[in-house]
Amino acid sequence: MGLISFDHTRPLDVVFLGRIAIDFNPAYSELVQEEFKPLKDVHYFEKFVGGSPANMAVGVTRHGLRAGFIGKVSDDQFGDFVIEYFEREGIDTSEVTRSIGGENLGLTFTEMRSSTESSLLMYRNGIADLQLSVDDVHETYIAQAKLLVISGTALAESPSREAVLKAALLARKTNTPLLFDIDYRAYTWKHTDDIAIYYAALARQADIIMGSREEFDLAEALICSGMTDEESACYWHKHHARIVLIKHGMKGSSAFLSSGDSYSIQAFPVKARKGFGGGDGYGAGFIYGLFQDWSIARCLEFGSAEASMMVRANNCSDALPNLEAVEEFITEAKVHGNRSAERVS
Amino acid sequence: MGLISFDHTRPLDVVFLGRIAIDFNPAYSELVQEEFKPLKDVHYFEKFVGGSPANMAVGVTRHGLRAGFIGKVSDDQFGDFVIEYFEREGIDTSEVTRSIGGENLGLTFTEMRSSTESSLLMYRNGIADLQLSVDDVHETYIAQAKLLVISGTALAESPSREAVLKAALLARKTNTPLLFDIDYRAYTWKHTDDIAIYYAALARQADIIMGSREEFDLAEALICSGMTDEESACYWHKHHARIVLIKHGMKGSSAFLSSGDSYSIQAFPVKARKGFGGGDGYGAGFIYGLFQDWSIARCLEFGSAEASMMVRANNCSDALPNLEAVEEFITEAKVHGNRSAERVS
Amino acid sequence: MGLISFDHTRPLDVVFLGRIAIDFNPAYSELVQEEFKPLKDVHYFEKFVGGSPANMAVGVTRHGLRAGFIGKVSDDQFGDFVIEYFEREGIDTSEVTRSIGGENLGLTFTEMRSSTESSLLMYRNGIADLQLSVDDVHETYIAQAKLLVISGTALAESPSREAVLKAALLARKTNTPLLFDIDYRAYTWKHTDDIAIYYAALARQADIIMGSREEFDLAEALICSGMTDEESACYWHKHHARIVLIKHGMKGSSAFLSSGDSYSIQAFPVKARKGFGGGDGYGAGFIYGLFQDWSIARCLEFGSAEASMMVRANNCSDALPNLEAVEEFITEAKVHGNRSAERVS
Amino acid sequence: MGLISFDHTRPLDVVFLGRIAIDFNPAYSELVQEEFKPLKDVHYFEKFVGGSPANMAVGVTRHGLRAGFIGKVSDDQFGDFVIEYFEREGIDTSEVTRSIGGENLGLTFTEMRSSTESSLLMYRNGIADLQLSVDDVHETYIAQAKLLVISGTALAESPSREAVLKAALLARKTNTPLLFDIDYRAYTWKHTDDIAIYYAALARQADIIMGSREEFDLAEALICSGMTDEESACYWHKHHARIVLIKHGMKGSSAFLSSGDSYSIQAFPVKARKGFGGGDGYGAGFIYGLFQDWSIARCLEFGSAEASMMVRANNCSDALPNLEAVEEFITEAKVHGNRSAERVS
Repeated sequence: MGLISFDHTRPLDVVFLGRIAIDFNPAYSELVQEEFKPLKDVHYFEKFVGGSPANMAVGVTRHGLRAGFIGKVSDDQFGDFVIEYFEREGIDTSEVTRSIGGENLGLTFTEMRSSTESSLLMYRNGIADLQLSVDDVHETYIAQAKLLVISGTALAESPSREAVLKAALLARKTNTPLLFDIDYRAYTWKHTDDIAIYYAALARQADIIMGSREEFDLAEALICSGMTDEESACYWHKHHARIVLIKHGMKGSSAFLSSGDSYSIQAFPVKARKGFGGGDGYGAGFIYGLFQDWSIARCLEFGSAEASMMVRANNCSDALPNLEAVEEFITEAKVHGNRSAERVS
Repeated sequence: MGLISFDHTRPLDVVFLGRIAIDFNPAYSELVQEEFKPLKDVHYFEKFVGGSPANMAVGVTRHGLRAGFIGKVSDDQFGDFVIEYFEREGIDTSEVTRSIGGENLGLTFTEMRSSTESSLLMYRNGIADLQLSVDDVHETYIAQAKLLVISGTALAESPSREAVLKAALLARKTNTPLLFDIDYRAYTWKHTDDIAIYYAALARQADIIMGSREEFDLAEALICSGMTDEESACYWHKHHARIVLIKHGMKGSSAFLSSGDSYSIQAFPVKARKGFGGGDGYGAGFIYGLFQDWSIARCLEFGSAEASMMVRANNCSDALPNLEAVEEFITEAKVHGNRSAERVS
Repeated sequence: MGLISFDHTRPLDVVFLGRIAIDFNPAYSELVQEEFKPLKDVHYFEKFVGGSPANMAVGVTRHGLRAGFIGKVSDDQFGDFVIEYFEREGIDTSEVTRSIGGENLGLTFTEMRSSTESSLLMYRNGIADLQLSVDDVHETYIAQAKLLVISGTALAESPSREAVLKAALLARKTNTPLLFDIDYRAYTWKHTDDIAIYYAALARQADIIMGSREEFDLAEALICSGMTDEESACYWHKHHARIVLIKHGMKGSSAFLSSGDSYSIQAFPVKARKGFGGGDGYGAGFIYGLFQDWSIARCLEFGSAEASMMVRANNCSDALPNLEAVEEFITEAKVHGNRSAERVS
Repeated sequence: MGLISFDHTRPLDVVFLGRIAIDFNPAYSELVQEEFKPLKDVHYFEKFVGGSPANMAVGVTRHGLRAGFIGKVSDDQFGDFVIEYFEREGIDTSEVTRSIGGENLGLTFTEMRSSTESSLLMYRNGIADLQLSVDDVHETYIAQAKLLVISGTALAESPSREAVLKAALLARKTNTPLLFDIDYRAYTWKHTDDIAIYYAALARQADIIMGSREEFDLAEALICSGMTDEESACYWHKHHARIVLIKHGMKGSSAFLSSGDSYSIQAFPVKARKGFGGGDGYGAGFIYGLFQDWSIARCLEFGSAEASMMVRANNCSDALPNLEAVEEFITEAKVHGNRSAERVS
């Protein structure tokens, strides 16, 4: 569609920068089922690759895109696990390095209390992914990517923070479009103002900004509080953004284009197993659509469908669907009356 | 026996100081069995309370002693889990506090590759137990204990290191016998010399020192390298120690008394599920024996039996046996020909 | 001239953000003269208020502007010294706070080896000014200033780094023009890329950027290496800058305007006592000129004259001249043939 | 006297371990006099080598002993200054290393408000001497010393703290007598309990302990509060100490021997220029006496005289007297009626 133009001579479709972690989810399989309950009372856990950018990398790969990753993992068997998983999925791991200071891989223990209550207990102190440094970010690698996707959690601490800001400068230098997935996690930020400062710094340089309404509020706290979606979009379009994607959970989401057009879609209703994971599916689906040169409306629909498929699943990586599964889900949902995206203005 | 005299007017038998953590072990239950394999390939895990002093506290409590604990746990559901577990077991948790800087509970993922190969992947960066500080160590509480047991892992970092050294000073001030369980873990120590320095500092003040030959070597590295068990015992007896317990894994263990007597026992042979957990059973059993005023030989036998029971189990806390189970194990083992402890000199 | 429009309803002319420190200079007074020699061999020192933004605040105040300061100083007698000095000079210190973690005031020991060789030995570890935090930066105060001047050394470390970035966001929010004085000091930066990242982040938001050619090279290292002055100016004009001031030491300096005009001036030749301090005089003079609505050529001349006056002095704060002294210096210099600034394009 | 027996085959008389720093004192020379005034108002400073163990090393060297030093200084001209000073004095600097992390040399600015009021403003954050590490402490060097003197300020922080504790272990291993000069400075200690813990740990291993009553109170805070001098001496004699030296400022000082004898001496009255520096002279004089095999009474007298000479001087290193000057001072004082040390018990 021309909003974002990809350089098709580059070997990698999408390079992700951010965390790779492990999710420990209450076991829920044929062998053993931990029903909804407080996390402290769960005895059996299943281990999955996790971390939003890692999941998105898996997601787009399952749709057929060629993904790479800039990240840092632990120098132990958990690091082996995630790298081997990526390699089995077909993700390029040539820029995934190992931490050298004994930092562990980040962990997320997920609590599933009911279909509407879930929470995360995260291990994020002294963690490998936040040790990513400017020395790990190479212009040559970014120049091989048609699109660079950065997760905002990587801004939470130095030296990872500077690695992100360097990557953004190199994206501009190499004419690589930048998608900023705000991906807020409360954990390692030291001060609310820091969030506002660094989200704004990165958002000003992004071609595509993706986040929930709450995440945009965080990014805009030192600019102008209480902006509407339209005002947010207008503000970021004045900087560098061409697509501003604002999500409202089960109420749907909207895409605002620098052309002035905007599109909204309602969420596909499903029975949720957990309150997270949807964003990963959304991102994977939307990005895939962009690469197919689909209309923004169709991109939204595809991402939105994949999001709903993920919240009903017990995990965030293994459960990511392939192309056919998403299309089947959409077809079925439409039969049952779900409306597709529509142009708002 | 008079070697260590307990003040029977005190309400608590044993107060432990050190880490409480969580063990995630490859699931091995009726529902799901992860057979011997590399940790990275394990999918199902079971969650157990862990940490050597925590396990010992559970162990002695199951034998009928009244235990308390000086420790720090995370201010989250994992912290809730371990405190609730302690309380269900009957351990006094009035001096178990919560970390206030977002520190997580320490984690240990156990690898069981074969009956002779196992390893640990530990989460020890930014961990609650190492945040125990001098402000958490109270003279009044130590004065309520007949015996103070300190795990050497608590010496690995400040502020926990100073909490330990303060507790040792207060033990002396309140005439509370001190058992130092060296309990070496490679993880958080910065320098080999630091290990030697702090182990020696604590060992000089202990009434009972317990550790493997390798652990004694670490403690003696800046004093005199390559001491035999007899030389080690002689050295520490000149300071404050009355019992020096040196373990040689499956080859058995020896107790050296300041009276000059010494006793050795061979291990009770079992088929191991894992290479750790034995020390916790050993300590719990030996301490229980001391409180029964048993002969050192019988203490050794009881501890040694409990050690063997633990290495064949899939976990280190739930599997700790009660009194009857240990006695039954010993009886059965003797039928099959295991020798009991014997006086060496 | 309209390039930078000041809001004349605001009570403060210039608010500076950055370090206040102490300079210890080899004594050179009527009482005692330390002639040119290595720093290690100097016995007598004189104590002066120092730090580039502190000196500039003194400088503009001596010309009659109303200055304020956002900074943090030590909670000891050295902190008292600098605050009392500011107050005697007439600088508003209502937003100068005290460090609460025992951080000392930064120190600079100056070496004067010859008229062409000088160096600095800085105390910058655990220093008060770098403890300035986002909590110390208030929108209401910035909104009272006609101009905000930020020294780039405040970007070297957190939390001061975030205080700067917040101030820049608030400057934009309150329509306060921002002058970024790059003011590079090698000391506390961790990585060359960090310099490039944060200088670029701030420069993109500045209305006026001031620095040496080497400082612009640092700011542009991840954008495009080896730019000429004209290319640099062009790049930053595309962002937000309206005046780009590039200094070449004794070779003079140039101002590039977003209008396309540019001006250059040669330095006023003097016999130097030291190789630093010139920048402070330059900044104070140039800013003063802007407030007088002088032509850029005259601003350059005034700043350039004040710069030369400073390098021949033994210190950087006490020696800052008043208006008449600068004008007298210029008049005298012109008699002796120094050329004034000229329009280049 | 046999209390402390020195191995006369060793090449170095005394090795000191601790800080080398710089004192900046208000200038008070023929050229320029800063009279008593608040530090903030002092303009001229004189630079001197400082730090208690450094001064003692200078002091004993001026009496003719052969001294060495284990320490770490900055890798800059201030580091050069102190090393060159030591070398000119004849102190062995082969184990004085340079900091590698940009740490500066510690600084002490001295305030002299009146003959009875003085204070110190110290730069102790990120300082070279506290970077001394276990890797800098070598058994071979300690084995060359007849006496090891450790300043307690080196216990204030890691890694210097561990360097001290290692040195104490190696002193024992090599049969080198250890003098512990408590030398308390409020600055870098994190918690009062830490002071008690580490002072006690080192005092337990020392042959000679030297400190003020307040310093002994700090060391004994977790052992037994409020001990008298006699009780303190008795306590430490039970550990390893043979000489316990307790100072009471201008009221004099006492030496308690493990033999049961004790000696007291009143201070030599002088008009003070400053409230510090006396301890350095005291230590240098007392140590010198020990090496002459003088009676303890005479050692006390010599140390006490040198202490008084130092408090009336404007600095703590340059002013250290030679042998003849101390003897002359004593002779003169006796003429004027000062009593010499007397045996108390």
